[in-house]
Amino acid sequence: MYNHRIKHPSLLDKIITAPQAAAYIQNNTVVGSSGFTQSGDSKAVLPALAERAATDPLQITLITGASLGHGTDGLLANAHVLKRRLPFQVDPTLRKDINKGEVLFIDQHLSETAEQLKSGHFPEMDIAILEAAMIEDDGSIIPTTSVGNSAAFAQLANKIIIELNMSVHPNVKGIHDIFFTGNFPNHRIIPITRPDMRIGYHSIPVDPDKVIGIVITNEKDSPADIAPPDTCTTAIAGHLLQFFDDEIKKGRLTRSLLPLQCGIGKVANAVLSGLLDSDYENLTMYSEVLQDSTFDLIDAGKMRYASGSSITVSEAYYEKIFNNIDHYKQHMVLRPQDISNAAEVIRRLGVIAVNTALECDIYGNVNSTHVSGTHMMNGIGGSGDFARNAYLSIFVTSSTAKHNDVSCIVPMVSHVDHSEHDVDVIITENGLADLRNLAPRERARLMIEHCTHGDYKEELMDYFKQACKAGGQTPHLLHKAFSWHTRFKNTGSMKSDVLQPEIY
Amino acid sequence: MYNHRIKHPSLLDKIITAPQAAAYIQNNTVVGSSGFTQSGDSKAVLPALAERAATDPLQITLITGASLGHGTDGLLANAHVLKRRLPFQVDPTLRKDINKGEVLFIDQHLSETAEQLKSGHFPEMDIAILEAAMIEDDGSIIPTTSVGNSAAFAQLANKIIIELNMSVHPNVKGIHDIFFTGNFPNHRIIPITRPDMRIGYHSIPVDPDKVIGIVITNEKDSPADIAPPDTCTTAIAGHLLQFFDDEIKKGRLTRSLLPLQCGIGKVANAVLSGLLDSDYENLTMYSEVLQDSTFDLIDAGKMRYASGSSITVSEAYYEKIFNNIDHYKQHMVLRPQDISNAAEVIRRLGVIAVNTALECDIYGNVNSTHVSGTHMMNGIGGSGDFARNAYLSIFVTSSTAKHNDVSCIVPMVSHVDHSEHDVDVIITENGLADLRNLAPRERARLMIEHCTHGDYKEELMDYFKQACKAGGQTPHLLHKAFSWHTRFKNTGSMKSDVLQPEIY
Repeated sequence: MYNHRIKHPSLLDKIITAPQAAAYIQNNTVVGSSGFTQSGDSKAVLPALAERAATDPLQITLITGASLGHGTDGLLANAHVLKRRLPFQVDPTLRKDINKGEVLFIDQHLSETAEQLKSGHFPEMDIAILEAAMIEDDGSIIPTTSVGNSAAFAQLANKIIIELNMSVHPNVKGIHDIFFTGNFPNHRIIPITRPDMRIGYHSIPVDPDKVIGIVITNEKDSPADIAPPDTCTTAIAGHLLQFFDDEIKKGRLTRSLLPLQCGIGKVANAVLSGLLDSDYENLTMYSEVLQDSTFDLIDAGKMRYASGSSITVSEAYYEKIFNNIDHYKQHMVLRPQDISNAAEVIRRLGVIAVNTALECDIYGNVNSTHVSGTHMMNGIGGSGDFARNAYLSIFVTSSTAKHNDVSCIVPMVSHVDHSEHDVDVIITENGLADLRNLAPRERARLMIEHCTHGDYKEELMDYFKQACKAGGQTPHLLHKAFSWHTRFKNTGSMKSDVLQPEIY
Repeated sequence: MYNHRIKHPSLLDKIITAPQAAAYIQNNTVVGSSGFTQSGDSKAVLPALAERAATDPLQITLITGASLGHGTDGLLANAHVLKRRLPFQVDPTLRKDINKGEVLFIDQHLSETAEQLKSGHFPEMDIAILEAAMIEDDGSIIPTTSVGNSAAFAQLANKIIIELNMSVHPNVKGIHDIFFTGNFPNHRIIPITRPDMRIGYHSIPVDPDKVIGIVITNEKDSPADIAPPDTCTTAIAGHLLQFFDDEIKKGRLTRSLLPLQCGIGKVANAVLSGLLDSDYENLTMYSEVLQDSTFDLIDAGKMRYASGSSITVSEAYYEKIFNNIDHYKQHMVLRPQDISNAAEVIRRLGVIAVNTALECDIYGNVNSTHVSGTHMMNGIGGSGDFARNAYLSIFVTSSTAKHNDVSCIVPMVSHVDHSEHDVDVIITENGLADLRNLAPRERARLMIEHCTHGDYKEELMDYFKQACKAGGQTPHLLHKAFSWHTRFKNTGSMKSDVLQPEIY
């Protein structure tokens, strides 16, 4: 049944079970696993490892592309298997352990993990677990629904375990484009000048001698949980589309825009959905994750080509895409994440980057990761790769959270992931602040006027005015800069009248 | 006398005086001027503009490569000529006006100004003032001691004023390499794969019809003020050289290292001087500013090639270099700053970036620009371009300032220019913290142990331990995060015993 998927004859002898494969992983092993935003992840060996740890405790370093599906990070965290984890995660159980300091989490730009590993900044990788749809004559593997860091792991790991996933049809061959930048000082140019350029191989080269086992699986990716657009995300999308229209009128963009990158989530989906009902044409993406909305745009003939590192879609879209993969192949490609997120390509193509902020401050600094400045949500992911090098770096957020008790526009962000230097436009449901080429004091007025929720506008303007009296390029009152955050901690709301009810 | 330097015949008729040239600049004009770290700047027209403004007030936007010499920014600030200034400055008078909010200062990554202008994110440039050593037959100009943004300004400005500087010998021809990346969506690959590669023209193309005047000058650049190494900078250089040695022993670097970038200043000079007394060989630089120490290394046969955007040296070195320019031409090149600082090239070459921090925090975030989080010092300059994309991103600072009353290692930086994601190594005179691939809590221990001054170690460790009790990926106590800064403001010292003398 799986024989025709293993074309390299000597590898046929290496079929093992998931527990057998997991047994290769010892205490302190450095493990790399395929998987990028829940796609193409290890479905069998990592869960088997979690199970084994119940009776045979061990701790490992786990490096992936990005997040894993099927709650695998949670299983591993519950089994106390993770000593160190990088570069990204989204699991609620793991998140708790990270924030307790029990798992050492390294939050990393997604483009950089492969570079860091190649450069030897990190301990040697012992074992890579790579999901594949097929093994070619030469031992190379056809990945499944993501590429992530799998190509780098295949090169760098001492040993390789392949998870051959029978649920993914071998005709995914052709959707991947595998390119290696090489090592310093002979690092290569990444010759992509258009999103639809193919520059590499169809499969990931694997040295068959490094393969210690092949585990047969038959399980699909966790489906993406796509929230439908709501009033807030629709308003944000509306502001962005209006902004694009204005830029087109000013002659700075055309109806094809420039290649789009959209962070994962419902705002991104709302934005891309907004493009559907418009007269845009020949759109392209140079992004990380191809979502439902990407394929809607392809189906509608609006999106000519989409480049990413994974396909992360809902169940219905999964069926549609992989039942018609020969059609979609003409309109998409999956690349290693050090290529999809490469500074070089992002700046060259002039990507328009749309990412989600957790909170923004009046000067345009963005926090993408840390709740109240201390507690990790998911990680910076690729947002920094794109925001820094984009033609336009756009961040979106609702103006408030927690039933208006939290303002997402604050005097000073409690953690900086994207500095004022890397943010061009900020949008909330209230409006859009175009911060390009403005000094900090000018930005503050726009942020307060256009983006801040009415409940917080006046106090924020008061803060700004008081800070201006104290002076500076970027006026602040350091003793009050986090007063909204501490007020929320103490009273459950950032609003000042909650703090002092006796006044009213 | 200057005729042989103006080879395009029709331009010979365009000689005018500096006041005549300045008269072209009207209220609200957007002016671009050559000049990068005091080199190759406008010596006549901008000072004439400042003089004129005394009797004929006006305000302009001034865009340069980086800082100007001869106190020109101060003259312009005193004359209230500057409404808006970007992307960098170092002038004490201008700095005061910026911090009062009287000049709108846009602090920008130096690689991005040209991109922003090309993309039309900024209003049209009316006039460019470009220093040149010679005008060629075709009207193109040979720049002098810097390239900066001059090539972009020459393309984008509606009108051009040339300052033909007779003090710079025309044999500087050949030290420049002018390359244009073009416009989106046809932005070109920057094909540099080694620091010594030349990819462009010897001169900057100029449309002769845009030239509205040529002003003859005869004044040298402001000499760089090089502070000799002291105990602190020598100790920092020692730690860095030891680190390089260790990396070489681990096989991660060779005796040629990788191309170096060094920020301007005495620490950088101390580091480069340290390389002189060592067995390094075939060193290269891919940097912004070529300083005295660069030429010492070339003279000693240790540095094979240095790429930058300006030569900023002391008076004695200036004479030596330009009296032997044919020799030095073989070992150096000056590029436009969107090429010297290009993300693409920096990552491809694997640059080792050494930049100076104003303050660092225990988690490896770096403030390069804002004193006490509010008051601008100089600007981010190119440090972000290099830190983000470097193979190794190293920041150096003394552990304290102001006679130990300020700790440069603080609980939380009061402004973030370089986030934890972009900082690999931090060095003070006390020691080195190698933060690569560590989680925040691990970094904090290293920063406190290795980098912090003895006077502040205990309190910083107390802060960290208390913060850890409150939990989080990046533990902080937001109500105390800036307590050292506010204490300094209130008492003149960050030390706690100064605050509470009655206890002792």
